[in-house]
Amino acid sequence: MAVYTEVTDEALTAFLALYDIGGLVAFRGIAEGVENSNYALKTSTGDFILTLYEKRVNPEDLPWFLGLMEHLAAQGQSCPLPVRARDGRNLNPLSGKIASITTFLPGIWPRRVLAEHCEPLGAALAKLHLAGQGFAPTRKNGLGPDAWGPLLGKCSGQADQVLAGMGAELTGWLERINAAWPQDLPVGHIHADLFPDNVFFLDGGISGLIDFYFACTDIYAYDVAVCLNAWCFERDFSFNVTKSRALLRGYTAHRVLSAAEGAALPVLAQGAAMRFLLTRLYDWLNTPQGALVTPKDPLDYYRRLRFHLAVEDASAYGI
Amino acid sequence: MAVYTEVTDEALTAFLALYDIGGLVAFRGIAEGVENSNYALKTSTGDFILTLYEKRVNPEDLPWFLGLMEHLAAQGQSCPLPVRARDGRNLNPLSGKIASITTFLPGIWPRRVLAEHCEPLGAALAKLHLAGQGFAPTRKNGLGPDAWGPLLGKCSGQADQVLAGMGAELTGWLERINAAWPQDLPVGHIHADLFPDNVFFLDGGISGLIDFYFACTDIYAYDVAVCLNAWCFERDFSFNVTKSRALLRGYTAHRVLSAAEGAALPVLAQGAAMRFLLTRLYDWLNTPQGALVTPKDPLDYYRRLRFHLAVEDASAYGI
Repeated sequence: MAVYTEVTDEALTAFLALYDIGGLVAFRGIAEGVENSNYALKTSTGDFILTLYEKRVNPEDLPWFLGLMEHLAAQGQSCPLPVRARDGRNLNPLSGKIASITTFLPGIWPRRVLAEHCEPLGAALAKLHLAGQGFAPTRKNGLGPDAWGPLLGKCSGQADQVLAGMGAELTGWLERINAAWPQDLPVGHIHADLFPDNVFFLDGGISGLIDFYFACTDIYAYDVAVCLNAWCFERDFSFNVTKSRALLRGYTAHRVLSAAEGAALPVLAQGAAMRFLLTRLYDWLNTPQGALVTPKDPLDYYRRLRFHLAVEDASAYGI
Repeated sequence: MAVYTEVTDEALTAFLALYDIGGLVAFRGIAEGVENSNYALKTSTGDFILTLYEKRVNPEDLPWFLGLMEHLAAQGQSCPLPVRARDGRNLNPLSGKIASITTFLPGIWPRRVLAEHCEPLGAALAKLHLAGQGFAPTRKNGLGPDAWGPLLGKCSGQADQVLAGMGAELTGWLERINAAWPQDLPVGHIHADLFPDNVFFLDGGISGLIDFYFACTDIYAYDVAVCLNAWCFERDFSFNVTKSRALLRGYTAHRVLSAAEGAALPVLAQGAAMRFLLTRLYDWLNTPQGALVTPKDPLDYYRRLRFHLAVEDASAYGI
């Protein structure tokens, strides 16, 4: 579940009075999402999402995230549009947290990814990259390569509790990834967390992208590599090249991947797998028993990482 | 969270094709509720709730629950109305479970109960009791006094892990409650679980009651006693007689409580506290670590039970 912060009726009423979006009709916690508390909010003027930002989000980053979402929406991208209060603010305090109201997007995220989802997903990712180009402020990727060493340092001593020998393996693999990490690839604003539960489909097409709270300014092709990890493996961790071909076909129909970007996909995919493996491993080792959210198994990304390390070149992804 | 069963897009599309409620627009898991999986479903014709019945609900009881809800809605009670598929069925298979679609009720359940909630709550409970009178089929209370002994039998050996000496205490108290349990009070259909999260308020009044999956045919005043437990204690487990007076005032404005019903309130409140204590104790002792739902602390109802056991008579509730 993803409701960490309960909002009293009085607090909600006072919060809504800051906005010009009509009277309260309904307010239900949303089960999806693990980072923030999300509520479906219905008012007399329509449907909205109310988000309370929880501890993993740095409050100083919030204006950047919401600014990017406003910019993308203004470019015609279907993403949540932050609603401004009467005084122009789109971030306001609620129940001891900072909160926002955003527009509601129709659509359903795919519980089971099919090959037919992957071409529109690739196209949406490329369009997102292009649409972000006019947004001047930048944000460093807080979970990029610089963060992996320290994160592994916090986990490596206990990693063998999860899988014997994994601590030493990850240390060696991280050295290999860091040494090969590309330095001169095109950079811009990326989503950095475009998993299936952040992509809504409707009537066979994409109706919107959500959850920009890991967005940052980093290598475009790294965002492609995140999607190769998140969308192209089957439940048995076999890699489905039909899906990756469709994803890359959709992407390159809107933004050309240069030869250098294509050639870097294996190491970028290794890095992306390492990023999710490390954050999951950290959560796995540090989530108290009885916590609201069950941590995700880090070994899912250990298996993906092993696949990408064994890849000879980007032809494994169908490029 | 309360999404135990994931529904694939294909399964959902096939399920909705059985109904005449328009095309799919959105589908989000709802965080509230612990027994069943609930989704907010939006179609081109409006908002609905899709419920998948999980293991605690006996499938044989479902037609009774939905029949009662249809009856209550026909009597003008604001409760979810089961939607019938084109073939007339209101229960259909989905993702290995039995599922229903019901209408969406506006309103917000009170996160913090105030005295002003309690009079309308009492009135709504009495109206529910009256509205149920025309519904002929009955359902035995599966969590009534007959069930408490066996439930305690499954827990008493481990109860002392939760609180030293509690196993023997509960055994003694249950004997006392059973010996005093009233036999001749008016009986009818009761909600039996009317906690604040099952009662929606809007603009100062009650907009609807939900979650009829513990409803049964039992002593009316027992339902009042459940509400005394669920609505009238403060967070420090002190009993707020202003709230109970308001609750009883609201109730008796619509349905007279006889002298015998009033006099039985202490033992009925003891029994209601015992029922929630025992189910919470069982869940506390039997929920695996890492389960989706964190079990609720059984001691909350141990404290309530001690209050009701110390009560001299029903004047403690303001009657």
